[in-house]
Amino acid sequence: MLTASVASFGQEKQSRKSKKPNSVVAEKGLVKVSVMYPFAEGKTFDMEYYETKHMPMVAAFLGSNLIKYTIEKGLASGIPHQPLPYMAIGTFYVKSLDDYQAAIGPNGDAIRADFANYTNIAPVILVSEVIR
Amino acid sequence: MLTASVASFGQEKQSRKSKKPNSVVAEKGLVKVSVMYPFAEGKTFDMEYYETKHMPMVAAFLGSNLIKYTIEKGLASGIPHQPLPYMAIGTFYVKSLDDYQAAIGPNGDAIRADFANYTNIAPVILVSEVIR
Repeated sequence: MLTASVASFGQEKQSRKSKKPNSVVAEKGLVKVSVMYPFAEGKTFDMEYYETKHMPMVAAFLGSNLIKYTIEKGLASGIPHQPLPYMAIGTFYVKSLDDYQAAIGPNGDAIRADFANYTNIAPVILVSEVIR
Repeated sequence: MLTASVASFGQEKQSRKSKKPNSVVAEKGLVKVSVMYPFAEGKTFDMEYYETKHMPMVAAFLGSNLIKYTIEKGLASGIPHQPLPYMAIGTFYVKSLDDYQAAIGPNGDAIRADFANYTNIAPVILVSEVIR
């Protein structure tokens, strides 16, 4: 499902964790996989299903590689007179992109089959590295 | 600079904070302003300048309305044979969109004038609400 080949950040993560035992997850260096649903006329998105069914299903596939996941609801463009860019974005913060791909691969059909339950939008997916 | 009109989440934030004094910021309910730099041939982006100069400058304009800001570097599309969607994304997590607009407005010229120092990309800006 993913094309990028990026080094695992697992080891780096571990060393950070041991230095800051009382903080929540340090995000720097983690890989983000952001699934972005572009807005357009006639497109629909069921946030309640997405939040309570779809995202928990995908998160369960990812196991301990998943540090956290987030969901946001698009409200507006930040530029006047521009349309809303995205109706929703779901983001997985993982230690290793390789492990993410290995976990999603065998479940790709189940994940895609669930799309029709909450949206008719084909998502854009961005793989990025947390710089700060 | 922003078109949306959204209620302030300042009060809600306060009550969450008092319940979880030892955790870092609870993000649910915050407004995100994501400044997204689309990738295309010939486009450039100086991450070092962006991280050390541009983002701190904008963050300073936002004062106590700013809960945190993040920076990510685009690595790849998560869909095979698709181009990288974004070279970089900078995100401000704020309590109130109204306060964000009021703070950015008078500094819009300074912010835009700084763009040429790190990129030739016209950004897409998404205003969203943190659901989870």
